[in-house]
Amino acid sequence: MPADPVIIWTLDWVPDGPRGFVRDLRLRWACEEAGIPYRIETVPFEGRETNHLDRQPFGQVPMLEDGAIRLFESGAGLIHLGGKSDALLPANEKGRAEVIQWIFAGLNTLEMVTMPWVVLQWSKRGIPEITGWLDNRLAQMEAILSECEWLCGNRFTLADLVMADVLRVDLVRKHGDRPASEAYIERMTARPAFRKAYADQLAHFAKADEARKENDDD
Amino acid sequence: MPADPVIIWTLDWVPDGPRGFVRDLRLRWACEEAGIPYRIETVPFEGRETNHLDRQPFGQVPMLEDGAIRLFESGAGLIHLGGKSDALLPANEKGRAEVIQWIFAGLNTLEMVTMPWVVLQWSKRGIPEITGWLDNRLAQMEAILSECEWLCGNRFTLADLVMADVLRVDLVRKHGDRPASEAYIERMTARPAFRKAYADQLAHFAKADEARKENDDD
Repeated sequence: MPADPVIIWTLDWVPDGPRGFVRDLRLRWACEEAGIPYRIETVPFEGRETNHLDRQPFGQVPMLEDGAIRLFESGAGLIHLGGKSDALLPANEKGRAEVIQWIFAGLNTLEMVTMPWVVLQWSKRGIPEITGWLDNRLAQMEAILSECEWLCGNRFTLADLVMADVLRVDLVRKHGDRPASEAYIERMTARPAFRKAYADQLAHFAKADEARKENDDD
Repeated sequence: MPADPVIIWTLDWVPDGPRGFVRDLRLRWACEEAGIPYRIETVPFEGRETNHLDRQPFGQVPMLEDGAIRLFESGAGLIHLGGKSDALLPANEKGRAEVIQWIFAGLNTLEMVTMPWVVLQWSKRGIPEITGWLDNRLAQMEAILSECEWLCGNRFTLADLVMADVLRVDLVRKHGDRPASEAYIERMTARPAFRKAYADQLAHFAKADEARKENDDD
């Protein structure tokens, strides 16, 4: 009997801006890399800040559901999926610990700076302290990526999935000149599993456009 | 034969400001909670941005060393320590996944906002977008903490250790009025393991003051 698919919860629709970047893509990508069966379920975009607090107390997406296990936080969902496949996360203790280290490097050391910096860019505020912090972190990543093809164990892991997803944000890519980082982003986003996950997310939201249009026409 | 102690790497000295908050405290606290033998080693504060890039490519502390396993990122170090004791992280899959979820909630959803907000406070910049984001996140945590004594499994875990350490930052505590969050911080920081780890960190830096003073006197 095949296992029940895991369920990835995302929003039913989002505006153009975040399309291709909503974090359900991280979980889709992981499932595609590892051949883990999954299906998509949605919560409404309207009222999203409070309409699913019972599942996600911060009103965000994605959530991951795997039988009795329900997780919010994409990092936690990824580590859970990693337990299902060596393609994402090595089974041995040392390799596993190192990949988890790089997931935190992506989500705490890097994204803690890239995300607030992007928010400030949106509102046209240049804050030298935050930009300096960003420049420092991106230069450190450039130095790391100048010396390795993969972050861990000489092969693709969740470490690369997370780091590439944090670094591939348009405004961040356009800020400064970092050839090794750029080549890394190109390499990771050229992977068939990423391309499939990305195309599927865009198609999901495009289909929602049609449904909204039909409702408007009624 | 007793196991070799794990090694927690921190800075040899820091100015007054960060004392009691340098993140080696997270690893010390976890070891104290679980009775894991550890010892402290240091890298110099002077030149800290580049003097240990071979161990920590972002020039930060702490690092954790456990035999052949060497980890930077306090989140990854905590999960590794959690593998040694049910006192920190449940051994069962569901419980473990939920605690890891809350570690990411602390380090990505909360600290991603608290840390840049504090940096902006230091430079006397009030940025409404970031303050609004902070207020929203802190209100969400207040709602969560109004309904539970512990974040996971009705007992202390790494989830509480991380969240309390993120929330106990002075400027964040003084910003707004959140009685459930405040009671939670009081409860967590009253734990003997926290108090021991905190006192030990302060003593470590106080001893470094003396060493620096003796050098000055030479």
